[in-house]
Amino acid sequence: MARRARAGILGFTGYSGAELVRILKAHPHAEPVLLEHRAVSDSELPVGENTSRIPFDTSAMEGEGLDVVFLATSLEVAMEAVPRILDAGIRCVDLSAAFRLRSVSDYRRWYGVEHSCPELLGEASYGLPEFFREMVRISRLVANPGCYPTAASLCIRPLIVAAILDRPPGVICDAKSGVSGAGRKPSLKTHFCEVTENFSAYSVLNHRHVPEILYTTDLDENELGFTAQLLPLHRGILETIYVRTAESMEWEDLHRIYAKEYSGEPFVRIFPKGRLPDLRGVQGTNYCDIGFRVDPESRRVVVVAAIDNLVKGAAGQAVQNMNLQLGYPETAGLTGGRGQE
Amino acid sequence: MARRARAGILGFTGYSGAELVRILKAHPHAEPVLLEHRAVSDSELPVGENTSRIPFDTSAMEGEGLDVVFLATSLEVAMEAVPRILDAGIRCVDLSAAFRLRSVSDYRRWYGVEHSCPELLGEASYGLPEFFREMVRISRLVANPGCYPTAASLCIRPLIVAAILDRPPGVICDAKSGVSGAGRKPSLKTHFCEVTENFSAYSVLNHRHVPEILYTTDLDENELGFTAQLLPLHRGILETIYVRTAESMEWEDLHRIYAKEYSGEPFVRIFPKGRLPDLRGVQGTNYCDIGFRVDPESRRVVVVAAIDNLVKGAAGQAVQNMNLQLGYPETAGLTGGRGQE
Amino acid sequence: MARRARAGILGFTGYSGAELVRILKAHPHAEPVLLEHRAVSDSELPVGENTSRIPFDTSAMEGEGLDVVFLATSLEVAMEAVPRILDAGIRCVDLSAAFRLRSVSDYRRWYGVEHSCPELLGEASYGLPEFFREMVRISRLVANPGCYPTAASLCIRPLIVAAILDRPPGVICDAKSGVSGAGRKPSLKTHFCEVTENFSAYSVLNHRHVPEILYTTDLDENELGFTAQLLPLHRGILETIYVRTAESMEWEDLHRIYAKEYSGEPFVRIFPKGRLPDLRGVQGTNYCDIGFRVDPESRRVVVVAAIDNLVKGAAGQAVQNMNLQLGYPETAGLTGGRGQE
Amino acid sequence: MARRARAGILGFTGYSGAELVRILKAHPHAEPVLLEHRAVSDSELPVGENTSRIPFDTSAMEGEGLDVVFLATSLEVAMEAVPRILDAGIRCVDLSAAFRLRSVSDYRRWYGVEHSCPELLGEASYGLPEFFREMVRISRLVANPGCYPTAASLCIRPLIVAAILDRPPGVICDAKSGVSGAGRKPSLKTHFCEVTENFSAYSVLNHRHVPEILYTTDLDENELGFTAQLLPLHRGILETIYVRTAESMEWEDLHRIYAKEYSGEPFVRIFPKGRLPDLRGVQGTNYCDIGFRVDPESRRVVVVAAIDNLVKGAAGQAVQNMNLQLGYPETAGLTGGRGQE
Repeated sequence: MARRARAGILGFTGYSGAELVRILKAHPHAEPVLLEHRAVSDSELPVGENTSRIPFDTSAMEGEGLDVVFLATSLEVAMEAVPRILDAGIRCVDLSAAFRLRSVSDYRRWYGVEHSCPELLGEASYGLPEFFREMVRISRLVANPGCYPTAASLCIRPLIVAAILDRPPGVICDAKSGVSGAGRKPSLKTHFCEVTENFSAYSVLNHRHVPEILYTTDLDENELGFTAQLLPLHRGILETIYVRTAESMEWEDLHRIYAKEYSGEPFVRIFPKGRLPDLRGVQGTNYCDIGFRVDPESRRVVVVAAIDNLVKGAAGQAVQNMNLQLGYPETAGLTGGRGQE
Repeated sequence: MARRARAGILGFTGYSGAELVRILKAHPHAEPVLLEHRAVSDSELPVGENTSRIPFDTSAMEGEGLDVVFLATSLEVAMEAVPRILDAGIRCVDLSAAFRLRSVSDYRRWYGVEHSCPELLGEASYGLPEFFREMVRISRLVANPGCYPTAASLCIRPLIVAAILDRPPGVICDAKSGVSGAGRKPSLKTHFCEVTENFSAYSVLNHRHVPEILYTTDLDENELGFTAQLLPLHRGILETIYVRTAESMEWEDLHRIYAKEYSGEPFVRIFPKGRLPDLRGVQGTNYCDIGFRVDPESRRVVVVAAIDNLVKGAAGQAVQNMNLQLGYPETAGLTGGRGQE
Repeated sequence: MARRARAGILGFTGYSGAELVRILKAHPHAEPVLLEHRAVSDSELPVGENTSRIPFDTSAMEGEGLDVVFLATSLEVAMEAVPRILDAGIRCVDLSAAFRLRSVSDYRRWYGVEHSCPELLGEASYGLPEFFREMVRISRLVANPGCYPTAASLCIRPLIVAAILDRPPGVICDAKSGVSGAGRKPSLKTHFCEVTENFSAYSVLNHRHVPEILYTTDLDENELGFTAQLLPLHRGILETIYVRTAESMEWEDLHRIYAKEYSGEPFVRIFPKGRLPDLRGVQGTNYCDIGFRVDPESRRVVVVAAIDNLVKGAAGQAVQNMNLQLGYPETAGLTGGRGQE
Repeated sequence: MARRARAGILGFTGYSGAELVRILKAHPHAEPVLLEHRAVSDSELPVGENTSRIPFDTSAMEGEGLDVVFLATSLEVAMEAVPRILDAGIRCVDLSAAFRLRSVSDYRRWYGVEHSCPELLGEASYGLPEFFREMVRISRLVANPGCYPTAASLCIRPLIVAAILDRPPGVICDAKSGVSGAGRKPSLKTHFCEVTENFSAYSVLNHRHVPEILYTTDLDENELGFTAQLLPLHRGILETIYVRTAESMEWEDLHRIYAKEYSGEPFVRIFPKGRLPDLRGVQGTNYCDIGFRVDPESRRVVVVAAIDNLVKGAAGQAVQNMNLQLGYPETAGLTGGRGQE
């Protein structure tokens, strides 16, 4: 039997990190190694979490024979850690935003930070396998996409490629996310009593994920209206996307475009006529479910996409990228989950 | 002390009906009378509900000296009952959709029914007081608006009146409602386990409330894209509305338009710059909260409106209409509630 | 018209404090004055909160002519502030635990603190009006009961007074509370994702509220088994209390005991045979609802009590105490609320 | 490779049935076959459910070569179907209550029905493998335990076997269940708006699961006080169990008893000192988590148990029983799931 890959996880106490641990424990070809860059108290760990932990330093990582490190940390920690990991000859899948954008000026504008290793921005591949699979395979540094852009890009890009949209006015993306998208750090915003029985918009027209959507879709900034909203639930993103087509289209026309784009894709499911995705269908899985309605007369199209923000929107896609980097079957470790066929 | 008005309630076991009872019990000038058009079992009543009930027939209603009857019933029951109530010389506030639309063909198209008393369609006033206050005052039959159109109309109409929109593409309205909007009748759709931790779109581009929004805003059907979605919570509607202005505008320009439109309105609150409504702020109140973001460069405007679907979206607005019909202060009985200043 | 009482609120940004503001704004004889003992940022305030604020110092309080101050603060802040307020000739209703227990040794044992003004412990009255009404009327310092003891004491004391219990084994109290009982300070324990779809026991056999229950019921510590558990909801406490009677009893026997104890009490509702309280019935109200089942053969009795932890369990009961202190009708300002008849 | 067992599922649209389908689809040695005893509409099926269905009749079942049939139906359907299935030479695991009790008089008393095949009552084994494993192995008919008795029995029986309890007063079991325990049939009781933000007791001292707990623990009916309550969440049961020991005991004494009882058991986890189970830890898994607190002075012991009512409380335990019947490893198909190590 082949040796299992050793996959380090930096930031394993957050929601994405814990999901990485869960997925990797059941992975047929890899196993998780928890990396501590600060002391972690037992109360932060899930009950029964007994995976061995090692300190995050170069010699320890080399001693452990790590093949890849996942960074489920802040952007700041990732910027500092990624060069050290790469220098140790270890691949990285970065779940923070540290290497998703293309230029230092983008980081100044959208994150208000001066990027500390701009020389790696050009090298990083954007880990949305449906569009950039071959680049991911050969990258030692994969920038794992944001949760919102994963669903938005998978919906919008086929429409751009097929050149069927009225531009302007472009695309409206009304996005709703569960609370785990805000991270595990306690705040008033994520306090149960502030969230339950409530719903609110929190980032209208200026969300940090916008540049990622522009990058994957080639939309101009003026052509995208994006709003993020907070659902009173744990996990899942549903995006409702509004466009107008230049010519009148039928449902079947649109279906042909999506079916062709995602033919053979293991993690994109196009819904049949009359059915639309919901969150229940994707929770715990690596699927992006897509459905749509078409009104030929007004030329309006509404596309609805659902993902689990912690799986296809974070840890699941990260493992999908690792599978590509290490030459495993792309779906390895990702075929379980409640919502799945 | 003046005699209190006697307000009959037909359909008092549903969520809107129960909310009517709650509001009218605390009303300074009116009191509820429960009308039974079928036998109601005790298990359908809230604990402690001890208001006296009378059968729904003309002689009983006359004997009770009713001044007004609220219909919180199905469209079918309302069509049948309203003519009998009016014939007995009693005013009606109809919370069903039976008298909201203008023509028998609209009822055929949107509700699939043949209207049984079309002669009353012309007489009914549309009970959105902010726009039709004077007509409501003199109407013996008020069609209480749908919950979605209440919020949508209050957001959109000022933009139309001010003639600032790009038309086409018109208006996108992405609407989200709590489960009480689906009524109290048990169904798989409202089963707790199907709703909790879930979110789904259920009526895309073809919701029955669309014609009401077109009526109050003068939008053409092709100019409105409306989607309804189900939130895993009890009560509240939040609508996110996307438009583009013909000319570049600043936030202050838009604020001037809304502030002027709703100057002196007791139940519309325009939010200050940088803040947007949420559901917590309106639950239990008769307010419609409105806030917005403006991007002058792309000329995009996002308007966010929140109401309690059972209050401003149903029972509260119905009492507001009754107050107008009977000559009471418009806010009588409607100034309490958790979310209020 | 008589002058309205001026009621200061120290700690108005927490859940109990905000509930005090809400109740006092609608109170017929009093009005809230917000006292700032630290700078409060706008983001901590509810939208639309426009009540004037004054700094918490003696001269400012005297200048404002305060009649009473509510302390919705930590025990530590209350210990420090109460003597200063009393010295200024102003009454106090303390919602913290600072004056609920009788001795400095109790504070050492249950709270791990050295009490800083033990001379006031003897003077403070325990503000459970159903049992200590006359003492509250004449007290300048009222210790407002804990939320769990309010419901537990109202259930258990009548059984003790009637001397019908088997002792031992005494009383089991299985208590469940909504998350607002844990306060508004963010923590992992109150993070939405940790609470939703979850349920857990957090304080078994050693909760700080135990000595209050012992005080009101005269139970010996060995005679009470108390467990606190966290419900995935915003507000409400339900307690399920298990006892055995010394002699076989019928439901009617027990009902007679409770009905006599609470005859004329405005805020205790005893349920009819076959019905038990739930949280929906009390949310937003100052009621304690009590129901029970009796099995004459095994001599088991199960008593179920429900309150809103922020109203009868905190702010509502505090206003009830203020009404007694200031000579207003005991129910003033407390008769609204969703769950009420 | 060995032939996979063919496992029929009667009642696959309910929550337990759907969970059976989910588990069996990932089972290494078996596969699900959906049996229709009535026409099932597509809207009752989960999206993507594409398992082939066959009519429920003897010849079809024989044609399919079924090895076992799971009954996730009402008691009435199970009573009628089980004899036919057994006659066709096929084993049964019955998730209804039809074969859990021992006598026709018990069925009259607790379920109000006349049992239609009493001759099978003696033959059925009670499928709680931790106590009755060897009987399950050789049974062609397994009565899968109720959800509440599964957790209660696993907690209580070791205390009885060790003979450490004070009897009387016996055992108090305060049980709380998520809504899926009430089944998928819509009713007012399971309507989202009636459940969310609510909590209520629904079966006090007279729950139908009581006789099962008495059967497994040898408690006398007078020695058990059992209350069932409804949690506002999807899945999970937590039971808080109160007993007094005859002699003073330490935590370590009790731990020794449980550790010995469950040594080697794959699906019972005993918690370390200071930690108690919650629902998050067991959702989606076949575990029963058990923890406890001990107060040596009052001799009180509180035991807390958590299971997923649809897994260890229904479908998971049913598959565990099937594994025993068919000679597979007992844990086959049951080792995945979110909450698991």
